Amino acid sequence: MGKVLDKSIKSADDKIRVALDGTGGDVRDTLPVVEAVRFAMAIYPNLYLLIFGPSQLETDLIKSGVDASRFEFHLAQQAIPQDENPRSVLKRYPHAAMLKAMEAVKEGNAVSMISSGGTGPLVTLARHVFGVQKLSANTLKLKEKLGMPVRSGAVRPCFSAKIPVAPNRFALMLDLGANASCTASDLFDFAHLGSACASEYLEISNPRTAILNIGVEQGKGTPLVQKARHYIEHDKSIHSTGFIEANRIFCDDADVIVTDGFSGNIALKAAEGVAELFSKGSGFKKIVAKMARPDWLLPWQYNGSVLLGVNGLVIKSHASAGKEALAVAMVEAARSANSNLAIKVQEHLLNF
Amino acid sequence: MGKVLDKSIKSADDKIRVALDGTGGDVRDTLPVVEAVRFAMAIYPNLYLLIFGPSQLETDLIKSGVDASRFEFHLAQQAIPQDENPRSVLKRYPHAAMLKAMEAVKEGNAVSMISSGGTGPLVTLARHVFGVQKLSANTLKLKEKLGMPVRSGAVRPCFSAKIPVAPNRFALMLDLGANASCTASDLFDFAHLGSACASEYLEISNPRTAILNIGVEQGKGTPLVQKARHYIEHDKSIHSTGFIEANRIFCDDADVIVTDGFSGNIALKAAEGVAELFSKGSGFKKIVAKMARPDWLLPWQYNGSVLLGVNGLVIKSHASAGKEALAVAMVEAARSANSNLAIKVQEHLLNF
Repeated sequence: MGKVLDKSIKSADDKIRVALDGTGGDVRDTLPVVEAVRFAMAIYPNLYLLIFGPSQLETDLIKSGVDASRFEFHLAQQAIPQDENPRSVLKRYPHAAMLKAMEAVKEGNAVSMISSGGTGPLVTLARHVFGVQKLSANTLKLKEKLGMPVRSGAVRPCFSAKIPVAPNRFALMLDLGANASCTASDLFDFAHLGSACASEYLEISNPRTAILNIGVEQGKGTPLVQKARHYIEHDKSIHSTGFIEANRIFCDDADVIVTDGFSGNIALKAAEGVAELFSKGSGFKKIVAKMARPDWLLPWQYNGSVLLGVNGLVIKSHASAGKEALAVAMVEAARSANSNLAIKVQEHLLNF
Repeated sequence: MGKVLDKSIKSADDKIRVALDGTGGDVRDTLPVVEAVRFAMAIYPNLYLLIFGPSQLETDLIKSGVDASRFEFHLAQQAIPQDENPRSVLKRYPHAAMLKAMEAVKEGNAVSMISSGGTGPLVTLARHVFGVQKLSANTLKLKEKLGMPVRSGAVRPCFSAKIPVAPNRFALMLDLGANASCTASDLFDFAHLGSACASEYLEISNPRTAILNIGVEQGKGTPLVQKARHYIEHDKSIHSTGFIEANRIFCDDADVIVTDGFSGNIALKAAEGVAELFSKGSGFKKIVAKMARPDWLLPWQYNGSVLLGVNGLVIKSHASAGKEALAVAMVEAARSANSNLAIKVQEHLLNF
């Protein structure tokens, strides 16, 4: 574990210090960021922000009257395009707001960082800045025995989100897009990361871990999910419950839902699409839609995926997700930091 | 084209004759089938059913008072398990209700068949009984030029469903599970089948065809979708509009949504899962949920996927989808038969 994680995660005055990449996202406009900052501060009174971005953002923050005692602004003019390739990300953006926000975490000035930048750049920089977490000797021995690549002990990082499954109850779904193409060994790693995170963050002991599939019968699906199930079921430290279908994601059938980044992203976005339809009506329809929605199911509650498997807390907000979504992601960043998530996940991984 | 397709698709008295596999589905109970039959007959007055199944089903149909002039019963005791392997499907079930229902279509006694049996058995039998449709010489030339396998000119069959995108407006999504693992060449075939079906069935000229992906930017996603986009964009007979994200499925951004069977199934089931949540509340919540739902978005409207690419009309109802869903699938079976779908799709394919 890097020494960065040993630093105190709270400042002396009990404020949660979160670094915000004020660039990135589909919207170049700075005003949604300002609105999200106001909203997040209102719902999380202990939140203190280190905001990195262009000078226009600073101007807008001041103009809008955001409480100056609750943030500090750091000029970082460079924005990394959503689809920039890994090589360029590492070479061409020494002044990027995304990088500066991560460095603030690494240096202990913030407990977590949040960005609505591209998935690729975010994962590339996070691996580089924080380093990748390790699997335990036991797990590696099992991987070797089952014929999985061991990759010098490193876990495959992935994005995880909390899925509402009942009032005040959540499941974790991962990966949500860090890895568009996955191997069965990656899915095995996600099961470990998800199991560790569900235990430490959602406080679920022995979390039920299922693989997303197009049927629950043993023989259903692709070679990928078949092989992943074989691997995971051989691991006694994981409470495997087989497969889960996408229509059961929100039904509290599993605590950890393991999937490749492509399918995970498709599943969550399809769910979001339908939830939005219900709130899109106008007039009377819109009002009854609000009344009809189960209180615990807010579309933007999906927002704020945590990058698991690196030695630092990185939260991704969906690009163009709207100001509420970005604010929720910020609160998620604060909460997960509050629970010291990255350290706990690494400790848990090493105890498997 | 097989001669089976040339037969008259309507009986003399203008009734639409549909063959029903009365076995299959997750529920072994015959009563949901009886209820579905009653419901389907009520909403589609021209529907006449050839029902194949166990003797208990006949008893229950008579007992429940279903109009005897609107169906005929054929004893077919064998049910094929959902996950039976292709070899066994062809060898061990000569008396299966699924097979008998297909043979009724092949012999011209029914215009289409419907089953809630397993995807695998259904596709295997349909290919065997009806034969697979052909691509045009032009399309095959293009496939060869781009390095795709040509497979003696046969198209890759797949399941397609109508997705509601606006009042009285639908898109087609395919594949939904006939092929859990797909190649880019398969996705190219689906674009052709979808384009042909949207033109002939939904009467959309030059349908906008998009590939489901985790982002719309050119470089996003897996090698599979990258390669499929490359193939499809080289085909001037397809109106390609690039990628589409899963949250835009219901937004009328595309008329044909092309995807592999795994992702397509995940997307639709995730959407169904959320739609169900909105209708699951009790008491007051349940009533307002009904009021809130856009009129054109009924969860069970997704039901009834059409198997495209074979020379006969096969409709799959989701297993355990409930009696309304099975009834809707039956009506879909009648409607698509009414439009003479299989013949028209084959003709359209050959004109590309």
